[in-house]
Amino acid sequence: MKSTAADGDSGGIRAVSRAFRVLQAFSPERMSLGVAELVRETGLPRTTVLRLVETLAAEGVLESGPDGQVRVGTRLIGLAAFSAAAWTVPEPSLARMRALAAETGETVSLYVRKGLCRVVVGQAPSPNTLRHVVRPGDELPLSVGSAAYVLLGLEAPDERDVLIDRVAAHSGTPGAAAPLRRGVAAAIADGWAISHGQREPGNTGLAVPIRPDDSDGTRVPARPVVLAIGGPTVRFTDDKIPGFVTAVRRCAEDIARTGLPPALY
Amino acid sequence: MKSTAADGDSGGIRAVSRAFRVLQAFSPERMSLGVAELVRETGLPRTTVLRLVETLAAEGVLESGPDGQVRVGTRLIGLAAFSAAAWTVPEPSLARMRALAAETGETVSLYVRKGLCRVVVGQAPSPNTLRHVVRPGDELPLSVGSAAYVLLGLEAPDERDVLIDRVAAHSGTPGAAAPLRRGVAAAIADGWAISHGQREPGNTGLAVPIRPDDSDGTRVPARPVVLAIGGPTVRFTDDKIPGFVTAVRRCAEDIARTGLPPALY
Repeated sequence: MKSTAADGDSGGIRAVSRAFRVLQAFSPERMSLGVAELVRETGLPRTTVLRLVETLAAEGVLESGPDGQVRVGTRLIGLAAFSAAAWTVPEPSLARMRALAAETGETVSLYVRKGLCRVVVGQAPSPNTLRHVVRPGDELPLSVGSAAYVLLGLEAPDERDVLIDRVAAHSGTPGAAAPLRRGVAAAIADGWAISHGQREPGNTGLAVPIRPDDSDGTRVPARPVVLAIGGPTVRFTDDKIPGFVTAVRRCAEDIARTGLPPALY
Repeated sequence: MKSTAADGDSGGIRAVSRAFRVLQAFSPERMSLGVAELVRETGLPRTTVLRLVETLAAEGVLESGPDGQVRVGTRLIGLAAFSAAAWTVPEPSLARMRALAAETGETVSLYVRKGLCRVVVGQAPSPNTLRHVVRPGDELPLSVGSAAYVLLGLEAPDERDVLIDRVAAHSGTPGAAAPLRRGVAAAIADGWAISHGQREPGNTGLAVPIRPDDSDGTRVPARPVVLAIGGPTVRFTDDKIPGFVTAVRRCAEDIARTGLPPALY
């Protein structure tokens, strides 16, 4: 093994990024992976994967079995407990989100921005069998969709334009900036947003900002948070939308008071 | 930032290890830490901590707030869901462990070996207020204690002696190898082990191996697993011990059939 200058060089940083790419290949449905699968999933060279698995196994983050399969290690137990505690929606707020899912019939989600994506950080599924299915932790594009417009509308005005340009460039869709800018402007003007089939045909989203009122001692999250409902466009008929907006807004007001996941404060 | 040769050099590997040292500083009780606290907790130089936080924040594993506080990032949501699913004790087995805790009055724990430590991977707490308290994910020494003896006794005979020497050397206690070797030999001969106050004064542990019988289709874990009860020595009176051994053994047989956490297969 070659020795190197300092551990903070780009090699070290790249190794950390790649280690998380390896970990990201696992999921509750895929708890045990072979090296060949890890190579395929991560797109990294086989030697790199082997070295990362060895390092992560030495740390107890992964376990490399005699059968050649790589599994989760014990080191993630504590980390998972911390993450679960940090990202759990407080029970009164989750109950309120479940009530909104029952009232509207649609999946209720909490979104925050992560870099140039938006991420689902809390959820109450629709009671219908045809429903919008996202998993907490899933990363969705920030270039389209009602939740993206409202999230970007909550960013500091002097940083918003640059961010919109970066998000549009990152989307890979030529000319994405202009419609995104219009969507954000409308969300700011209206205080809510709706989008039909932008991310996925036949899927509609309706989003409102969560605006805590700290005058009564309500805690203000450290970053913008959005509450949205999502489901098949056919169920978002014109006659229902005003009622949906009122219902989602009321839920947003309630959960601003009852609290968001601890990680957001 | 200096560029370096390859990312697989010792710098890269060291950066991955150090990144997990930073993550390990967080816990459900300490969800938000300042850089000074991270420096204190990890023992790493401030510049290294800053660089690692920056890398982990770019990956979405951590979030660095405008208030200078570092929090959990959204990237850990999915990882935590995977780890939680992998390490969850199947409900029938957890119910059986709870029944053993009620029957014996002591905390019931599942242990596996991780390198030169043993780790708690499942638990049913004692119903008593004075009780053995360990958290799943906690790493305990493999050099002392009944669970250590039984775990080491389950290792392949041709690797056991070298492992015992390494564990003893790692413990930092001169002369630790001989008593450890005796403890392991007794555990193998008896099929169970008991230890009083070895890790902590006044604490007793009683451990048995989990030996799945695969003749009836029971799945065999990929690594040795031990079931133990632990509590104050004053409650492990001589007259109670035979009954405890029988009770813990019966539970071990039952949960070998009803199943261990998916990560162990």
